[in-house]
Amino acid sequence: MSMDRLIEKIIVKGNPTVVGLDPNLKNIPPYLLEKHVKEHGETLKAAAEAIYEFNVGLIDALYGIVPAVKPQSAYYEMYGVEGINALKRTMDYAKSKGMYVILDVKRGDIGSTASAYADAYLGSVKVGETVIEPFAADCITVNGYLGSDGVLPFVERCKENGKSIFVLVKTSNPSSNELQDLVAGTRTIYQVMAEKTNLWGEDLVGKNGYSDVGFVVGATHPTQLLELRRAHPRQFFLVPGYGAQGATARDLAGAFDRRGLGAIVNSSRGIIFAWQKTDCKTGENFAEAAYDAAVAMRDDLKRYC
Amino acid sequence: MSMDRLIEKIIVKGNPTVVGLDPNLKNIPPYLLEKHVKEHGETLKAAAEAIYEFNVGLIDALYGIVPAVKPQSAYYEMYGVEGINALKRTMDYAKSKGMYVILDVKRGDIGSTASAYADAYLGSVKVGETVIEPFAADCITVNGYLGSDGVLPFVERCKENGKSIFVLVKTSNPSSNELQDLVAGTRTIYQVMAEKTNLWGEDLVGKNGYSDVGFVVGATHPTQLLELRRAHPRQFFLVPGYGAQGATARDLAGAFDRRGLGAIVNSSRGIIFAWQKTDCKTGENFAEAAYDAAVAMRDDLKRYC
Repeated sequence: MSMDRLIEKIIVKGNPTVVGLDPNLKNIPPYLLEKHVKEHGETLKAAAEAIYEFNVGLIDALYGIVPAVKPQSAYYEMYGVEGINALKRTMDYAKSKGMYVILDVKRGDIGSTASAYADAYLGSVKVGETVIEPFAADCITVNGYLGSDGVLPFVERCKENGKSIFVLVKTSNPSSNELQDLVAGTRTIYQVMAEKTNLWGEDLVGKNGYSDVGFVVGATHPTQLLELRRAHPRQFFLVPGYGAQGATARDLAGAFDRRGLGAIVNSSRGIIFAWQKTDCKTGENFAEAAYDAAVAMRDDLKRYC
Repeated sequence: MSMDRLIEKIIVKGNPTVVGLDPNLKNIPPYLLEKHVKEHGETLKAAAEAIYEFNVGLIDALYGIVPAVKPQSAYYEMYGVEGINALKRTMDYAKSKGMYVILDVKRGDIGSTASAYADAYLGSVKVGETVIEPFAADCITVNGYLGSDGVLPFVERCKENGKSIFVLVKTSNPSSNELQDLVAGTRTIYQVMAEKTNLWGEDLVGKNGYSDVGFVVGATHPTQLLELRRAHPRQFFLVPGYGAQGATARDLAGAFDRRGLGAIVNSSRGIIFAWQKTDCKTGENFAEAAYDAAVAMRDDLKRYC
């Protein structure tokens, strides 16, 4: 099972961290863009090559201590077709180094379209007789606002192809309360989403006791993290919000089970742009700075799991 | 204002139809793929070239009578980077023929990420001193499950760049009731989403009386269409579900105002794959078949608006 593969990588590394690869050009070391602009001019190609080189440096520095990466698709889509090419190459490179790739795309649509997205990210397409996996993520994030028929195509690909998904339950952003915390009958909307997600994934529980269909729950909501952990012992959590969004390791304590499993915690800016808080103003130390930040985060989290 | 541009195109063509460009390879005429496989082998490149040629044929046949196209991003993402390249080229070609391009991406994320998506589809990025519009859609679809901070970056780009969005309110799929119809207090979730969307777009009402921030409401829900039309006279509707999903023109009557404006109705499979219902088994008549189907749909809709 796919979530088992993630859990085993977390155990081997002793580290429940996923590093978010959100390489906004404004924050990557300027020399990287300058180098590729020399070759390609001020183009999306230059931006994409700078991003890819940045990501390779990060992955080389991190794969020994971090089990997973989570590229945020928006930061690649914003550089157009070239940016998405850099995303694909980044995913391939991370997998070649043994990292588990959670692609953060938050897709969700009507059944036939969800099926097309599922083929894109967790499955394959046929061109003539040739079967091709267009992106081949290990796992993606899914938005369930459309209900079961918008999510089940992703669940089917999990089953068929050994993949995982995390469904948005309670997101980390300040206005997540507007819809997600509304009370319908006796339950909040995020509780309804959690219960539905539990059902969608009930046939996909692996040997570690967790389903291939997990939850996204923000670290910025420690009470809900604990409540959802207790109510849904078979759901693994992808937890954004640590670091730049304000949550601390203590806020996360409720996300873990007695074995110290149950959640993988994302940090993006706090790790990949750690060079900005060092004395090296060129950013040539970005990979070492990311490594140091990842070690500090691991040690911080390990106090609570 | 961007919604005014759409409305003016609808008035000029006398046709409130948007054609969904969802070119699943399984349904496009086989000779198109065969031609490009000869040149590129059984690759994503061949698939993408076949899709692009199909789309160009459709656009050439339709731009005289149809005001807008709605490419569904999933059907391009499923052919990888090459597929997304075909999407971008299709959008550019449709715009060159004067069509309004609604890109159906259903994006939604936390604020900083929503901002990156908004730059990708409705805005621009800077590479050095060069400003580039990566996709340059006229309009996109947005998922509001994350609340205001996940939607407002898109609204800002509407204001800054003369763009529009349609927020998912009540989707056309069978299980849309599971979350969207839950009752919180006195209102359903889709009514809450509608009220929020109304507020997000209240500063962007154009000279035709409609905001640049509209709703997605499925044609499969005629009662809700009428209810939402009455409650939200300033919101233009993007209405999927006509044809292949089962809704008829009569179901749509409630979506329109007294001027016959207020909604644009999508049909995808019913138009672009109309060749499959003709006697021509090679599909070489796909463009004429699409034209005939679009004329029939226009005439069908005009009985009610």
